[in-house]
Amino acid sequence: MTLSSRAFKKLRQITGKAHCTQKKEDLVCYAYDATAQKFLPDAVVFPGDKSEISEILKLASKERFVVVPRGSGSGMTGGALAVNGGVVLVTSRLNRIMAIDRDNLVARVEPGVITGDFHAAVEKVGLFYPPDPASSAFSTLGGNVAECAGGPRAVKYGVTRDYVLGLTVVLPSGDIIQTGVATAKGVVGYDLTRLITGSEGTLGIIVEMTLRLLPLPEEVRTMTAVFSDMRAAAETVSLVIKKGIIPRTIEFMDNNSIRCVENTLESSPPAGAAAMLLLEVDGSPAENTEALARLEQVCTEKGAIDIVRAEDKEAAERLWRARKAISPALYAFGPDKINEDIVVPRNRIPDMVEKIRQIGNETGLVTASFGHAGDGNIHVNIMLDKKDGAQLQKAEKAVEELFDYTIRLGGTLSGEHGVGTSKSAYMAKEIGPVEMALMKNIKAVFDPHNILNPGKIFPEKD
Amino acid sequence: MTLSSRAFKKLRQITGKAHCTQKKEDLVCYAYDATAQKFLPDAVVFPGDKSEISEILKLASKERFVVVPRGSGSGMTGGALAVNGGVVLVTSRLNRIMAIDRDNLVARVEPGVITGDFHAAVEKVGLFYPPDPASSAFSTLGGNVAECAGGPRAVKYGVTRDYVLGLTVVLPSGDIIQTGVATAKGVVGYDLTRLITGSEGTLGIIVEMTLRLLPLPEEVRTMTAVFSDMRAAAETVSLVIKKGIIPRTIEFMDNNSIRCVENTLESSPPAGAAAMLLLEVDGSPAENTEALARLEQVCTEKGAIDIVRAEDKEAAERLWRARKAISPALYAFGPDKINEDIVVPRNRIPDMVEKIRQIGNETGLVTASFGHAGDGNIHVNIMLDKKDGAQLQKAEKAVEELFDYTIRLGGTLSGEHGVGTSKSAYMAKEIGPVEMALMKNIKAVFDPHNILNPGKIFPEKD
Repeated sequence: MTLSSRAFKKLRQITGKAHCTQKKEDLVCYAYDATAQKFLPDAVVFPGDKSEISEILKLASKERFVVVPRGSGSGMTGGALAVNGGVVLVTSRLNRIMAIDRDNLVARVEPGVITGDFHAAVEKVGLFYPPDPASSAFSTLGGNVAECAGGPRAVKYGVTRDYVLGLTVVLPSGDIIQTGVATAKGVVGYDLTRLITGSEGTLGIIVEMTLRLLPLPEEVRTMTAVFSDMRAAAETVSLVIKKGIIPRTIEFMDNNSIRCVENTLESSPPAGAAAMLLLEVDGSPAENTEALARLEQVCTEKGAIDIVRAEDKEAAERLWRARKAISPALYAFGPDKINEDIVVPRNRIPDMVEKIRQIGNETGLVTASFGHAGDGNIHVNIMLDKKDGAQLQKAEKAVEELFDYTIRLGGTLSGEHGVGTSKSAYMAKEIGPVEMALMKNIKAVFDPHNILNPGKIFPEKD
Repeated sequence: MTLSSRAFKKLRQITGKAHCTQKKEDLVCYAYDATAQKFLPDAVVFPGDKSEISEILKLASKERFVVVPRGSGSGMTGGALAVNGGVVLVTSRLNRIMAIDRDNLVARVEPGVITGDFHAAVEKVGLFYPPDPASSAFSTLGGNVAECAGGPRAVKYGVTRDYVLGLTVVLPSGDIIQTGVATAKGVVGYDLTRLITGSEGTLGIIVEMTLRLLPLPEEVRTMTAVFSDMRAAAETVSLVIKKGIIPRTIEFMDNNSIRCVENTLESSPPAGAAAMLLLEVDGSPAENTEALARLEQVCTEKGAIDIVRAEDKEAAERLWRARKAISPALYAFGPDKINEDIVVPRNRIPDMVEKIRQIGNETGLVTASFGHAGDGNIHVNIMLDKKDGAQLQKAEKAVEELFDYTIRLGGTLSGEHGVGTSKSAYMAKEIGPVEMALMKNIKAVFDPHNILNPGKIFPEKD
């Protein structure tokens, strides 16, 4: 399924010459994503609207070339990579916020809108869009919906799926469909909206979205609690929830995660720090004051050695900058990183962090775990030099072990990054053969010629 | 596809004689639902576990007889009716609450558990399951998930879909599949969980469910506001939301709805009452006090002529009894009822209630509208004598007009009752031909021989 020169010419007719390229220097820019892998596409197109996208997919269906939809390329599992070549379709020109409806608490947006820009736009009018992946400064809303992105606020507010009311989608056939509703509720027919949400760009290209909004919380308060015992920190997470407190955020950072961003923190964590929790509550000042007091009490009960409330917005932002810097800062421990996104039931987090520490000890590789502990969602990182064959082998064995243990604890292999290419080989650990066949048959219903983002989600051979 | 006597014998072997019947007096009991229609099934089975359900569906696939899954038969759109004959499969024996996990805020249940029993069980340990359809005293959790039930609390807490984490489902082939997760998050593969939720028993039979729970709110407070102007009452709903207040409930009752339950209210509404709002907030006492004050202010601003706070739990329960009595009490206005479940954007509720009043005036039929106005979800009732041909014709024309107007306002034909048989003829008003074809193809993936609940959702001819 390589792109013929005839097909490329037709593509240029659809988008105009300025928005379709095969120049090597352009292709290189759209060959990568946050997995640090590279696959050169045959061409890159930047359609200007949904009817151009429809024309491109009609052409692709007819000429049988592959189309890979792409937002900002901030995905963590290869969803936007042209692993089988083909045309990368970038949604950056579909970047309008078409409506922010304060009466009905809904917004209508195009997929290329930057998540952070959307946050700012709705907050300006007193509204709130909770999903906040760490990449929100550059990720797109379309990419967020395609991957069902999460983020720290999911503890209280849920994930992207919970804010998608309806979609306009171009099918591989070029047909443009409407799914879902523009209202708070709707149950007419099968739920195509949630089927497409999180389908990683394999069922259709999202061209418009109706998103649910909330009133902006009056106030946000942030605190940290440092523990000398990693297990106690992990146990605190589930104790908080068990006590009936639902902060909007409970982030966990282990020792290595703290160490690698220590210099960005205002003050160094106390000696003997083994793990840190970053907790955030929102609501009225009175509610927040009460919630913080209760959280401090639980943390103290579990032996926290240092508890600090962020005094103002700037102090809170410094904490978040440190938290969001962890993922890139980990490269201080090694040139390569294997980054997983497992979820376990909250009360199994202590077992999971113990397991990760044990894997680090056994392999001699540096591991770091941090993430959205309030959801049981831990980002596990194994640092290594991939050019070192022995290290690579150990790391791959460790990942296998980690996934098996995750499943044994009743967990899942991905909380918010998706499967893409990074996890497809492991998918059968979680998804049985009948379920997998159902999913493949659904894919075939939407995309009979397998032109849309092939090679993703499903294991190559089975 | 009638049931052969051979197939019936095999059914009895699967479930045991005591749990499989063809006696006329038994069939009659499973011929009805809340639509007041009747379709006699060929047999009724009461399997004892999921492996019996699997055996039954294997047999049905082989012998090509129809299976209609049924909870309590409280559905409003015919989902549990054997409209094409076949075997009604009742889930009442699968009624275990298998786990209520306080650490992880999840429960694992079988489909035959009564919704109200489940509410009581989780509340006893300080937890909360928000979905609360009006029929919760007898509806089943399996039926709730199959229809994606709503209820008054959806304004703040969302619908059943938002509380389903994972499912165990028997496919028409007899294969037993697992979907979703037991954790707070999960994005591995396509979202079969939400595809099956709300699919009205047409894709598979739900045999186990993992449901998400919340901590039980500390306190609930209830108030009513009576308006002399129906439009002002309707406008108040969207003004409340616009002011950033999210009560857990905003119920609307028009004049006829109030009148028919007046005798169950503690005191009669004041003279000139045209509509009433029933508002409920939950949280800490301090939060509730503040929220009630703000709600009173908004209601006063919109001209409420009477505002009453329920003094205690009993007073609140009396209000809810009155609210829940509306649907049956409406029969005082006529022997038959057409009951619709439309949703419009919240700020179009005033237009919608006006339209309904106008339809009443033009047709001379009694109309009553009440329901979950906070979601824009209005239950519209047209009272008539179906034996009177002229009335029936007028009512059917009115429904057509109502649906067209709903779509024109950006709404949907069903917020929580589903399509079933009652709305399938109107489905094409909302769902386009390409979308409909996708849904039918998905149905064929799950149920190639169309043995599971055929004749539902999709229009008979198209």
